[in-house]
Amino acid sequence: RLEEIFEPLHAADLADMLEQVDQRERREILLLARDVFDGEILSELDESLREEAIEFLPDDVVSEAVRELETDDVVDLVEDLDEPQQEAILDALEDADRVAVEQALAWPEESAGRLMQREIVAAPEHWNVGQTIDFLRNQDELPEQFYHVIMVDPRLKPTGYVTLGKLLGAAREIPLTELCEDTFRPIRVTQPEEDVAYAFNQYHLISAPVVDEDDRLVGVITIDDAMVVLDEEHEEDILRLAGVGEATSLSDRVIETTKTRFPWLFVNLITAILASLVIAQFEATIAQFVALAVLMPIVASMGGNAGTQALTVAVRALATKDLTSSNLWRVIKRETLVGLANGLAFALIMGVVGWIWFGQPMLGAVLAIAMVVNLVIAGLAGILVPVSLEKLGVDPALASGAFVTTVTDVVGFFAFLGLAGWMLL
Amino acid sequence: RLEEIFEPLHAADLADMLEQVDQRERREILLLARDVFDGEILSELDESLREEAIEFLPDDVVSEAVRELETDDVVDLVEDLDEPQQEAILDALEDADRVAVEQALAWPEESAGRLMQREIVAAPEHWNVGQTIDFLRNQDELPEQFYHVIMVDPRLKPTGYVTLGKLLGAAREIPLTELCEDTFRPIRVTQPEEDVAYAFNQYHLISAPVVDEDDRLVGVITIDDAMVVLDEEHEEDILRLAGVGEATSLSDRVIETTKTRFPWLFVNLITAILASLVIAQFEATIAQFVALAVLMPIVASMGGNAGTQALTVAVRALATKDLTSSNLWRVIKRETLVGLANGLAFALIMGVVGWIWFGQPMLGAVLAIAMVVNLVIAGLAGILVPVSLEKLGVDPALASGAFVTTVTDVVGFFAFLGLAGWMLL
Ligand SMILES: [Mg+2]
Ligand SMILES: [Mg+2]
Ligand SMILES: [Mg+2]
Ligand SMILES: [Mg+2]
Ligand SMILES: [Mg+2]
Ligand SMILES: [Mg+2]
Ligand SMILES: [Mg+2]
Ligand SMILES: [Mg+2]
Ligand SMILES: [Mg+2]
Ligand SMILES: [Mg+2]
Ligand SMILES: [Mg+2]
Ligand SMILES: [Mg+2]
Ligand SMILES: [Mg+2]
Repeated sequence: RLEEIFEPLHAADLADMLEQVDQRERREILLLARDVFDGEILSELDESLREEAIEFLPDDVVSEAVRELETDDVVDLVEDLDEPQQEAILDALEDADRVAVEQALAWPEESAGRLMQREIVAAPEHWNVGQTIDFLRNQDELPEQFYHVIMVDPRLKPTGYVTLGKLLGAAREIPLTELCEDTFRPIRVTQPEEDVAYAFNQYHLISAPVVDEDDRLVGVITIDDAMVVLDEEHEEDILRLAGVGEATSLSDRVIETTKTRFPWLFVNLITAILASLVIAQFEATIAQFVALAVLMPIVASMGGNAGTQALTVAVRALATKDLTSSNLWRVIKRETLVGLANGLAFALIMGVVGWIWFGQPMLGAVLAIAMVVNLVIAGLAGILVPVSLEKLGVDPALASGAFVTTVTDVVGFFAFLGLAGWMLL
Repeated sequence: RLEEIFEPLHAADLADMLEQVDQRERREILLLARDVFDGEILSELDESLREEAIEFLPDDVVSEAVRELETDDVVDLVEDLDEPQQEAILDALEDADRVAVEQALAWPEESAGRLMQREIVAAPEHWNVGQTIDFLRNQDELPEQFYHVIMVDPRLKPTGYVTLGKLLGAAREIPLTELCEDTFRPIRVTQPEEDVAYAFNQYHLISAPVVDEDDRLVGVITIDDAMVVLDEEHEEDILRLAGVGEATSLSDRVIETTKTRFPWLFVNLITAILASLVIAQFEATIAQFVALAVLMPIVASMGGNAGTQALTVAVRALATKDLTSSNLWRVIKRETLVGLANGLAFALIMGVVGWIWFGQPMLGAVLAIAMVVNLVIAGLAGILVPVSLEKLGVDPALASGAFVTTVTDVVGFFAFLGLAGWMLL
């Protein structure tokens, strides 16, 4: 009965379902559904639950599940497991597959070498359509996924590729060189997967040959795997910008989640204390004029938000390589001017509000000036901080927020309270 | 000489380069590079610059550029142009292409109908490999991009598809039905493109047939276009979470950028004023004990950050359909407990800091209790606000931030100052 429910579901949906129930239910389902459990479900399962499932399921179920998978999916499955589990899964593989997986694992983490499949369809560059089709027809087994025939020279260096569509539409005597795609872009095996995803998205690639240091063909990356990386990189950025440890998933337990969120909150506490130290310098001023305590969070909060806007645009533009040395200066100028323009607009609004609320035109003036100062600084920090972090090799998505809000808090409180002490008392 | 520089560049890189220079340089390049300018560059160009380029370039350059494009790319190009420019480009097309583009434009914006190509390769489901290959070889022109042959019944309803790889590897007499992929998933022509991108990513599709209300095949969507949508949807979420109007680009002018950022800053001003109104209730308390003004931003800021963490995870989980009614209750429980756990940790830290800094154990206690309260509320608001917005049909990425920080500011100031008034005075 359970199998009747599961059979029509795609492995990805089944995995999602397993992620959404609690641990007790998950184990019950895994036990009952042992017979429909397969490698695809395992590889769709969230990393945090894979280990649990592998440990919980009988060894023979796991072994059989893993043997069905393509080697690139096995690599993705085992690379984050700990030593003994990894060993057990490698042991379950056929010898040829095991070698392929181990070779892939020898490449650096998050590199093209980890992402590529080793099942390649290549043909000598001097062949024609007929020769190539006959060759394909006589293969015992073709890869599950391939969209191009890669042309190679005698040294196995890829020199171009032909889409299967072109091959099917052309007459037998036409040489491959005539059907060659102009989007051909080999990828270096050590290239970071992030760059691979960028290249697929930028150049609309469907598959790309992977070459080693000697320019020899060693594998192929297909767009479906590049799309997964693009999705993961986005997820990483969005979570890092929000100060959430990246290795999160909804199925994490309370303790794990608390631990991944604590560090960022701690960093924020330090910056908040810094801001408080600034306020503490003006205790005497505030004691004389309590309205300042009421209004000061407005200046800081507006600066923090304007800074976040600017830094998010900058982080995103750095990730898409749209912010480069050739337009950096113009973007800095633009952010400063935008800060100035919005600063003036809100200075006007808050100047009037401050004046009317507390009946003191000078208080309105202080609020207005502080607002302009903080919004200009916010724009500047919002662009300069992520760009500097990127230059230093730190992921701007990870750390920009803390730096920028520290700047806007400190400047906001300092400008507002400092001006108030000077102009009001 | 300019052509020598441009010729080897991919259209996407050329477009990026045009985006990174300023308007004057851009016009100079466009003028000088008229002869290498083509449809691909135009369609890679950022939306905000397309209109400018189309207006600036001579009509015949634009017409010729557009005629080279596949119809799905023309649709993407013209859909956001204003009436007269759109008309001019449609006029430049051949009749058949013009009809195809106009039919696509009749489907709702951001629907599968806008995304699909109308160039289809289909075969009767009862054919075998040989018949299909002969049919393909005899076609005058095959689509630039196709990865599957779609099998259709006599009513043109798609019933399955075969990858070109399988077709090339199989013997001529094998029926198509034997080679059918199990990932086959037709897409409804009115389906939102966001769902299309989700389906491609979730089910690792390479291409998918698109059907109309009568289940008849009307087009095909390929993964490269779905990947672009996935990327755009991510960009939209990341910018909306940061309160940046989505239609931004680095090449926008200062006025446009100021205008897209103003509304969110205005919303933030309202929430900041709300928070100030809360503080204003406690002016007397602060006047008696100025240390409160120094410490109160810490409580609010920690709450804001904890709330942002929770809401970002929730917004992301809603987008990936990982947060559903079946795990909502557990996630709410988890966020509350995480808020409690981190609340207790920071209560301890700040209790000690507050005590030592101002030499008042009771001040430490007030700070500690307010911290726990605000972090629990932050966790709760961080999950309940985005889920409720989603239920109401509002994009949770767009509005959650404002609501959650309002809650944490108000609760933070109220809890801290209220407790202080009660416990310290
Ligand atoms: Mg999943
Ligand atoms: Mg795969
Ligand atoms: Mg991986
Ligand atoms: Mg693969
Ligand atoms: Mg990464
Ligand atoms: Mg990154
Ligand atoms: Mg780009
Ligand atoms: Mg571009
Ligand atoms: Mg579009
Ligand atoms: Mg297309
Ligand atoms: Mg959209
Ligand atoms: Mg969305
Ligand atoms: Mg999912």
